[in-house]
Amino acid sequence: MSTFGKLFRVTTYGESHCKSVGCIVDGVPPGMSLTEEDLQPQLTRRRPGQSKLSTPRDEKDRVEIQSGTEFGKTLGTPIAMIVKNEDHRPHDYSEMDKYPRPSHADFTYSEKYGIKASSGGGRASARETIGRVAAGGIAEKFLKQVSDVEIVAFVTQIGKVKMNRDPFDPNFQHILNTITRAKVDSMGFIRCPDASVAGDMVKEIEHYRGQQDSIGGVVTCVVRNLPTGLGEPCFDKLEALLAHAMLSIPASKGFEIGSGFVGVSVPGSKHNDMFYFDEETKRLRTKTNNSGGIQGGISNGENIYFSVPFKSVATISQEQQTCTYDGQDGTLAAKGRHDPAVTPRAIPIVEAMTALVLADALLIQKSRDYARSVTH
Amino acid sequence: MSTFGKLFRVTTYGESHCKSVGCIVDGVPPGMSLTEEDLQPQLTRRRPGQSKLSTPRDEKDRVEIQSGTEFGKTLGTPIAMIVKNEDHRPHDYSEMDKYPRPSHADFTYSEKYGIKASSGGGRASARETIGRVAAGGIAEKFLKQVSDVEIVAFVTQIGKVKMNRDPFDPNFQHILNTITRAKVDSMGFIRCPDASVAGDMVKEIEHYRGQQDSIGGVVTCVVRNLPTGLGEPCFDKLEALLAHAMLSIPASKGFEIGSGFVGVSVPGSKHNDMFYFDEETKRLRTKTNNSGGIQGGISNGENIYFSVPFKSVATISQEQQTCTYDGQDGTLAAKGRHDPAVTPRAIPIVEAMTALVLADALLIQKSRDYARSVTH
Amino acid sequence: MSTFGKLFRVTTYGESHCKSVGCIVDGVPPGMSLTEEDLQPQLTRRRPGQSKLSTPRDEKDRVEIQSGTEFGKTLGTPIAMIVKNEDHRPHDYSEMDKYPRPSHADFTYSEKYGIKASSGGGRASARETIGRVAAGGIAEKFLKQVSDVEIVAFVTQIGKVKMNRDPFDPNFQHILNTITRAKVDSMGFIRCPDASVAGDMVKEIEHYRGQQDSIGGVVTCVVRNLPTGLGEPCFDKLEALLAHAMLSIPASKGFEIGSGFVGVSVPGSKHNDMFYFDEETKRLRTKTNNSGGIQGGISNGENIYFSVPFKSVATISQEQQTCTYDGQDGTLAAKGRHDPAVTPRAIPIVEAMTALVLADALLIQKSRDYARSVTH
Amino acid sequence: MSTFGKLFRVTTYGESHCKSVGCIVDGVPPGMSLTEEDLQPQLTRRRPGQSKLSTPRDEKDRVEIQSGTEFGKTLGTPIAMIVKNEDHRPHDYSEMDKYPRPSHADFTYSEKYGIKASSGGGRASARETIGRVAAGGIAEKFLKQVSDVEIVAFVTQIGKVKMNRDPFDPNFQHILNTITRAKVDSMGFIRCPDASVAGDMVKEIEHYRGQQDSIGGVVTCVVRNLPTGLGEPCFDKLEALLAHAMLSIPASKGFEIGSGFVGVSVPGSKHNDMFYFDEETKRLRTKTNNSGGIQGGISNGENIYFSVPFKSVATISQEQQTCTYDGQDGTLAAKGRHDPAVTPRAIPIVEAMTALVLADALLIQKSRDYARSVTH
Repeated sequence: MSTFGKLFRVTTYGESHCKSVGCIVDGVPPGMSLTEEDLQPQLTRRRPGQSKLSTPRDEKDRVEIQSGTEFGKTLGTPIAMIVKNEDHRPHDYSEMDKYPRPSHADFTYSEKYGIKASSGGGRASARETIGRVAAGGIAEKFLKQVSDVEIVAFVTQIGKVKMNRDPFDPNFQHILNTITRAKVDSMGFIRCPDASVAGDMVKEIEHYRGQQDSIGGVVTCVVRNLPTGLGEPCFDKLEALLAHAMLSIPASKGFEIGSGFVGVSVPGSKHNDMFYFDEETKRLRTKTNNSGGIQGGISNGENIYFSVPFKSVATISQEQQTCTYDGQDGTLAAKGRHDPAVTPRAIPIVEAMTALVLADALLIQKSRDYARSVTH
Repeated sequence: MSTFGKLFRVTTYGESHCKSVGCIVDGVPPGMSLTEEDLQPQLTRRRPGQSKLSTPRDEKDRVEIQSGTEFGKTLGTPIAMIVKNEDHRPHDYSEMDKYPRPSHADFTYSEKYGIKASSGGGRASARETIGRVAAGGIAEKFLKQVSDVEIVAFVTQIGKVKMNRDPFDPNFQHILNTITRAKVDSMGFIRCPDASVAGDMVKEIEHYRGQQDSIGGVVTCVVRNLPTGLGEPCFDKLEALLAHAMLSIPASKGFEIGSGFVGVSVPGSKHNDMFYFDEETKRLRTKTNNSGGIQGGISNGENIYFSVPFKSVATISQEQQTCTYDGQDGTLAAKGRHDPAVTPRAIPIVEAMTALVLADALLIQKSRDYARSVTH
Repeated sequence: MSTFGKLFRVTTYGESHCKSVGCIVDGVPPGMSLTEEDLQPQLTRRRPGQSKLSTPRDEKDRVEIQSGTEFGKTLGTPIAMIVKNEDHRPHDYSEMDKYPRPSHADFTYSEKYGIKASSGGGRASARETIGRVAAGGIAEKFLKQVSDVEIVAFVTQIGKVKMNRDPFDPNFQHILNTITRAKVDSMGFIRCPDASVAGDMVKEIEHYRGQQDSIGGVVTCVVRNLPTGLGEPCFDKLEALLAHAMLSIPASKGFEIGSGFVGVSVPGSKHNDMFYFDEETKRLRTKTNNSGGIQGGISNGENIYFSVPFKSVATISQEQQTCTYDGQDGTLAAKGRHDPAVTPRAIPIVEAMTALVLADALLIQKSRDYARSVTH
Repeated sequence: MSTFGKLFRVTTYGESHCKSVGCIVDGVPPGMSLTEEDLQPQLTRRRPGQSKLSTPRDEKDRVEIQSGTEFGKTLGTPIAMIVKNEDHRPHDYSEMDKYPRPSHADFTYSEKYGIKASSGGGRASARETIGRVAAGGIAEKFLKQVSDVEIVAFVTQIGKVKMNRDPFDPNFQHILNTITRAKVDSMGFIRCPDASVAGDMVKEIEHYRGQQDSIGGVVTCVVRNLPTGLGEPCFDKLEALLAHAMLSIPASKGFEIGSGFVGVSVPGSKHNDMFYFDEETKRLRTKTNNSGGIQGGISNGENIYFSVPFKSVATISQEQQTCTYDGQDGTLAAKGRHDPAVTPRAIPIVEAMTALVLADALLIQKSRDYARSVTH
């Protein structure tokens, strides 16, 4: 359904052509400075139309806080936020509406709801993610105040063009230790911090745009400065919650944490993260971080990092040989101009969902910490 | 926590050295034939000691239904199941207990709970999964009665040895259409249905066993005959629930559905699954199935298939240079014999978690179906 | 928190002086006719200022649907609704703000959140209930379409003035069988259908208004035409869900179902509801209904009826000897005019919460019905 | 369903004639001393057969902890507990089984599950409450360690015989301040601390026993030493959670907190609880406690007290004119001897459910406390 989280919880609403999209965020701690200015940057990063390579539509997407703050401080009560839709009239049905768009949600929504919405894909529309990003911004600000938690996502693959993301390569681990959003954004809309491949990624996108086609990519995300102890055995392991969150993002097709798929061919003797005592932080740390910051489902204080593949955009202008809802074979060609690669725009969504998972897990763990401190 | 699911819900308990492990399954439909005989086969498949390559311990693992059935039929009330632990005495502390085992959950459990359990890893022990497999067996029987749903998992990679799992290859799709548990088990403990690589997989395991080391692998799972409409936008997309379930399995490091990570470099024009009208079933189907049976988070009636990587086992007999809880550098070597590759044993666990996700999603969707049928 | 329900779920937001109040309703069946016109009547019934006896403030409270409908039909997606606050500026702090209002939520909110909100009681404000009433209107429309479910609440007590609500009296049972909202509203703002006591109730309120005081009352609610089978043993018994819902309404102090507190002194031989076969409906019914339509936590097809006491309004204009947050003794007198009896206005809120509980329980039960129909 | 609570969570199972009944308690803090000896006393108090007035059956009800402790200390992992059923064979069907017992759950279970269980009422059996009492014992021990929280329930009414429970009477408030379980048990099985009426209560029960009939009663419960801040607006108000818990107990018909139903006729000027600064505890307290320790849904540090009516036992030996499942009129007379008044035995169940609600609310609030402490 449209609610996510236990103690820090977001509920979202809205589709393309209704009056507004938005969310209610419940469980926000009181006494935290918060205005729209804190949230707008990530919403703006999410917007289409940020470069000539992206879709030229210009959604304004100004967030308005409705409740839960007073004089710029949170009250501890639910924070509702809305973003008005520019064009909230459902469109007229056209010839194209006879076709369920291939690999889009039209057919399955029709099966589930019995409705062929004109509303641009209903909840499968990318506009659904606006509420997530607004909510994630609050979670992120809270995490920052807890322990300077940093969440940075970036593009590591577009089509066949990859940057190094080998978990066993110290260079990649160095990137995870140092990457910032400023660095990511300095690379332009492509949001790949590796200058040696970013240009090729742009070309890859241009290539498919030229063919009225689309192409997918991979987003990698790192979390730094997270306390130990987050995550709850056995079904709410921290990586399970993150995987749930990532696979709930439209167009995502997977998730891997730490060494992921590559790690399965590395033997235990090399894969195991040995411990040492860190003189600086005065606590145990691991020499390597193939676990990706989580062991036994619980954060261990090292960087959490994971990757998420996003499939090629389903909406393309090329003609497609498919059939109508009624089973008549025919040719569908989407009108208008379409974004050939949404992967870079997924960055703030990945960051937001990560923040929502972590804020919730942290609130739960702080309760566990307390309980443990009083028992005997 | 230890509860999973909304309307079909399992709660598990137990660790290595307590009296028993087990679960309570709530929301099981009434009137279904059910005895221990239905559940034991998957529990037996989960057991260690099934071949010379695997660990020689022999856990008996006989499940006993405590409640919720009468005269061999379910009552609709919670079904509790227990499996006694053979050795339920916590062991004596030894020199080895001074060390948090690398890449095991010892350190993070200590951080979270402040306790260094002698109980073989607490809830991070593989015995925790017994309750899941017992519960999954009930879910699976229900799904079978709904629409002959079939769930088959199999090994597609051990270390560097892979069988073909290219989603764009018709041969792989053919395997997904036809693979059975009988076929999987016919390959012996390795549970890889591709005879051309299964031998090499066995050799890979033998190699690492010889080195007192361990190695990981990948499990792929297919679901056939599932109705359309399962999964709930936007946070409870069916693939998000599956990812959550899979990443909650000990040692799993990822999840990919349909075309997964490979699919990101395939353009939309090729990646999109075109529709056609299937004369046999009299409904829309897709010509290809790169989506993996789910579009917009909702099942579309095609096969669902996904893969899950399992890391190399953390417990190895080799000496490891690590440090104690107190920060003293030292050498840890696990005593006894250990399973060098648990991937094949993960098969029934993957199947069980899949069944639990689907039974729950199906119950929810049937409610949606009803509601839609009466509104106007 | 601010979310209620499992499959039919409402999340509310808003306090007195923020921009708007409202809610998101998730799990609404698709294909149902729905516009603001369906929801406004109950919101209007909830409004203050409906008579000279009530508070003279005039809140407009026009609901605006933001999402989830198209061309007047529900889409199956979340329905967000907002009602703008007329005065959304937090007021200036005054001398009175030094005092936590006795029996209001000021002190406990301060303890919980560390904040002394100027926002008229934060979420303890009666405006919080607007979202509930809007959401309940949707639930109610759905229940109507399912089986013509009728929910009617009415005032049965104001201060010491009671109408007959003896569950063992056939006259009261007759009222439960026949009462309508039209009848309730025909009695004016007092909403007590018994003309023989309604006048005295009005006098009771006038009496306390004259003393700048307030008085409480009791609301009784009946549900007719509900299917059997709703409610889930053992913690989600239907009466437990109703009790939860009723005690979540501001100022409510209790709940009793069927024979309630009075019934404890009636022996089993008289209290038990004997069965008979009803020729008209061709099913088992009970000769009496002391159970209040629920047995073993599950609806039995008879009328559900229950009562809810509402305490005297905490905000009164009389001077009160109390102390400030800082512990200084002093005298507090609320400014302005205040509603001396909110019980009649609680009617639509009780109806809304009842509808929310029942819609959710019904959706769950329809899933159980299905499951049972396929097992063997 | 059979799970209750969010962070401190119990899941129960079992009916009369299955192998065992019990529960899994999840979220128990680690490091707490815990053995069966801590839990057995309340289970023993719950047992039937404690006096000649009660049913002569002797259930042994020895609880066995299965998991989650080691060397007498909790591990932080789920604690499973089982109590074996003495007679776990489903009985043979008899003539009496043709009748749904009036005001029992037979009919509604049949409607919901399509099954006429021989298992003594399925989950509606009083044995279902064993798991609750075992779980409540753990919750209670935790609360004791937090702040010496005391929970004491006692009988305040049997049939028409009442002890004083007028919330506005200082004598009753004194009882709430001082009552202990030792005092309650010192009165024998009747568990009413008021010697002036306890004898009449016993006579009331004897009277109905003599008539092969049954009679109901009221249990009142007080909680002392609870911290402020527990409970979550707006749907999870602390009194809403308590009401939910109480109405989930078999045979309960209501709930009232603080002044409850009586309070509605007391004007605000008298009902409001004025504040004063308490020199001893150095914090604000209220001069009266008509609110019952909760304001705005949040605990205020005063005693929480509430009452719960229990209906007359449905199973009586008297002949009852009712009809069979098939609609045939006939006479039903329960065989054997039956408990004429279960109210005194409800005491430990009420205490257990109270402890479960409070432990969960406390864990949540401690998380809120933390969050508030770090924001700025």
